[in-house]
Amino acid sequence: MSAHPLEEIIHPHSIAVVGASDSGRGGGFVAPLLEQEYKGKIYPVNPKHSEIMGLKAYASVKDIPGVVDYVISSVPASQVLGMLDDCSRKGVRAVHLFTARFSETGRKEAAELEQEILRQAKKYNIRLIGPNCLGLYYPRENIAFHDGFPREPGSVGLASQSGQAVGEIVQTAAARGIRFSKGISYGNALDFNECDYLEYFIQDPETSMIMMYIEGVRDGRRFFDLLRRATATKPVIIVKGGRGESGTRATASHTASLAGSMQVWETMINQAGAVSASNLEELVDFSTAFYFLPPITGRRVGVAGGSGGSSVLAADECEEAGLNVVPLPAELREELKNKGSLIWDWIGNPADMSIRIDRDWDTGDMLEIMSRYPDFDLLIAFVRGHYHPGQDQLSAGHYLKQYRLNDLNDKPLLAVMEYMSRSNDDDDDDSRMFRKMMDEVRDKLIEARVPIYPHIKRAARAASKLINYYEHGRNG
Amino acid sequence: MSAHPLEEIIHPHSIAVVGASDSGRGGGFVAPLLEQEYKGKIYPVNPKHSEIMGLKAYASVKDIPGVVDYVISSVPASQVLGMLDDCSRKGVRAVHLFTARFSETGRKEAAELEQEILRQAKKYNIRLIGPNCLGLYYPRENIAFHDGFPREPGSVGLASQSGQAVGEIVQTAAARGIRFSKGISYGNALDFNECDYLEYFIQDPETSMIMMYIEGVRDGRRFFDLLRRATATKPVIIVKGGRGESGTRATASHTASLAGSMQVWETMINQAGAVSASNLEELVDFSTAFYFLPPITGRRVGVAGGSGGSSVLAADECEEAGLNVVPLPAELREELKNKGSLIWDWIGNPADMSIRIDRDWDTGDMLEIMSRYPDFDLLIAFVRGHYHPGQDQLSAGHYLKQYRLNDLNDKPLLAVMEYMSRSNDDDDDDSRMFRKMMDEVRDKLIEARVPIYPHIKRAARAASKLINYYEHGRNG
Repeated sequence: MSAHPLEEIIHPHSIAVVGASDSGRGGGFVAPLLEQEYKGKIYPVNPKHSEIMGLKAYASVKDIPGVVDYVISSVPASQVLGMLDDCSRKGVRAVHLFTARFSETGRKEAAELEQEILRQAKKYNIRLIGPNCLGLYYPRENIAFHDGFPREPGSVGLASQSGQAVGEIVQTAAARGIRFSKGISYGNALDFNECDYLEYFIQDPETSMIMMYIEGVRDGRRFFDLLRRATATKPVIIVKGGRGESGTRATASHTASLAGSMQVWETMINQAGAVSASNLEELVDFSTAFYFLPPITGRRVGVAGGSGGSSVLAADECEEAGLNVVPLPAELREELKNKGSLIWDWIGNPADMSIRIDRDWDTGDMLEIMSRYPDFDLLIAFVRGHYHPGQDQLSAGHYLKQYRLNDLNDKPLLAVMEYMSRSNDDDDDDSRMFRKMMDEVRDKLIEARVPIYPHIKRAARAASKLINYYEHGRNG
Repeated sequence: MSAHPLEEIIHPHSIAVVGASDSGRGGGFVAPLLEQEYKGKIYPVNPKHSEIMGLKAYASVKDIPGVVDYVISSVPASQVLGMLDDCSRKGVRAVHLFTARFSETGRKEAAELEQEILRQAKKYNIRLIGPNCLGLYYPRENIAFHDGFPREPGSVGLASQSGQAVGEIVQTAAARGIRFSKGISYGNALDFNECDYLEYFIQDPETSMIMMYIEGVRDGRRFFDLLRRATATKPVIIVKGGRGESGTRATASHTASLAGSMQVWETMINQAGAVSASNLEELVDFSTAFYFLPPITGRRVGVAGGSGGSSVLAADECEEAGLNVVPLPAELREELKNKGSLIWDWIGNPADMSIRIDRDWDTGDMLEIMSRYPDFDLLIAFVRGHYHPGQDQLSAGHYLKQYRLNDLNDKPLLAVMEYMSRSNDDDDDDSRMFRKMMDEVRDKLIEARVPIYPHIKRAARAASKLINYYEHGRNG
């Protein structure tokens, strides 16, 4: 069996960046390759420069002495056909067109030029990513198009019509512990399109789940069939951009996509067993649950660590998200009573930790007890820090001990860390130390494969989406 | 006309804190009064101490030499009756019972004791706030129950059954520029209840809008009548805790409230013209719009400053929230064309700023043009900073100039600042300087009375709630 056409082009031994310069976006493609310590050769191409970012620059692709496997183009649209000629003579097989201002402008001549580029590329047997996109992020091959993308690879395959979205997704997902196998921004989808990227991730052994941001689908039937194949073994979480009238207009001027009917879309997504998210925040929220949690097939949740009104609202939010906030089982109450708890008859689920009398008895103890009862399918913990002056010797590890993560008998756990969504008004030392400790706590939770959310509502909705997926009998 | 019973007790010239100590929650009531520089006398009461936090302590309320206007009780439940005797002899008119573990425990004897306390207080002509609550925040009188509450007063009246909720609301609202006339945590509502607090805010000249967190309503008819009266002149935004089955159970063990039917509740809220929020985040989001924006009665929104996929999704989110993302008017396009814009036929609404060719033409210029057209009822701007090394001389003021806030012809504007919801992974100097600049930008936007949201969805939903309110002909 031959490799997928995409697999053949994303392991380049050399990359030429045409239109590179020390400043501006063209140079922007060289810098991240250097930052990621890309192992192959980097050839900046620009007739006006002899050196770019410390690398020898060439006037044309033709002038490059060695083999060129992959070209990133940031030349103006009018120069693309000429550049393809050069690429053809050099034997290039893959061109990523960052170059934009084609069909998305709504102008007839720009759309015609785009089609002419496709015809020419086909004639030359060159495959295209784009145009109007940021291209490939492939941490295992040290390839990225953005500064600060994690170098550590993971198992999420991401395909997005918007490059801005890839940047936002990769960076917000990184803070939640998600790492990527590949991330591809594909813009106008002139050659490879959403179906090809999905097909690629289905067969890619480095990818175990798939995230997509899609504005339009060209071949609905093929996409549906692929989606159904994908979800049988890999969860697929999708955001559709251009759902309403104005969004449809916006997709046209963004990537020249025809957004299509939202009703047809939702039906297709559901029938194919994919998970629908309505924005990038939800996309990352839902994916965090799929990335870290095992299959969960029941909805009975135990909640601990909130206090007062937040505990009451936690119950409401969980229920409204489709979870069952079951009462504490009688046996569990008995156990609390036998342990000498003074609130065994009073404390409930959610367990309001503000009513504790015995300060030695903490959220982790409640979680540990809940984890031993088959009455709970999953647990949600509020992880709240309170910085008090003089507490500075308190370490993240010490703090985390009270959550007893190692004693939870493999019961799935989600954590709510509200500090993540708080604007840090104070820049004093205490606030900084507190945030630093909480960041460490967060990192340790991620290490323990606990998905983290800034709000109980978002945790509950993500858990519910995960359960929807697995209760339909998928393996994941 | 005599003053409202609450008005009579919330201007105390002296406050006794019974059960105070240097540590623990009892001391916690003395410390914020000192922090706020409360102008009256503070009398800590504790037979085990002669001095607390630098103040002379008394063995009993009876031993205090001067007049005592207001008592905060943090003695155990069993000592409350005795303390009321002392208060009566001292002529105290108002007692705030932080003391808890009454009916909310679900225990018969605790509920009976609570009723006995009410009978005794009535006999002594003492009014009660609580029990099981944090009491009064009144910045104009320098009274607070929490460290770090803003000293600056504002015009929002807040009544909440949960003290935790008051803390969360005041602090998250403060970061968005909201300030309070009074904030009251009222717990089990044994004497004064939700109706009394609402009635108080209706007639309070210091209060122009009202926020509430409610778990249960005792007298539905009276509450509805008051709510209708309130919304005629002051917007009321309410979160109901205990909406579902498990939340109802949680309200019982939190403040012994009977949560009631959610369907009846929603109908009542809508008929009375109040604004319903489903959690504290929404409560603050909606209130921020009401606090800063003038009445808006149309739904046509202009959006600028996003880029790529975020612009497409902005259109979807606005539409799904009930706003109309109208196409750019032909005259506006003509104006752009006449100004020499190269994208006059391409740019749309939302205005995707990533397609600009002329870098001198910025989000503010688009907002300024939109503001001059009657086709838009309101504007939403993405305010995004990008910190680049070497940019450190860039000030918030300089940065903000490109948003042209002073040129918007009084068109209502909401701002989306996504940095607020990003966990700040990096603690390096560049990130800190960037956050610091964005915090300053935020402060200046607040000064200009621009409501700020971390996400377009939240801005759009808040705007929509505001328009709902005013399009029904209320004065606000």
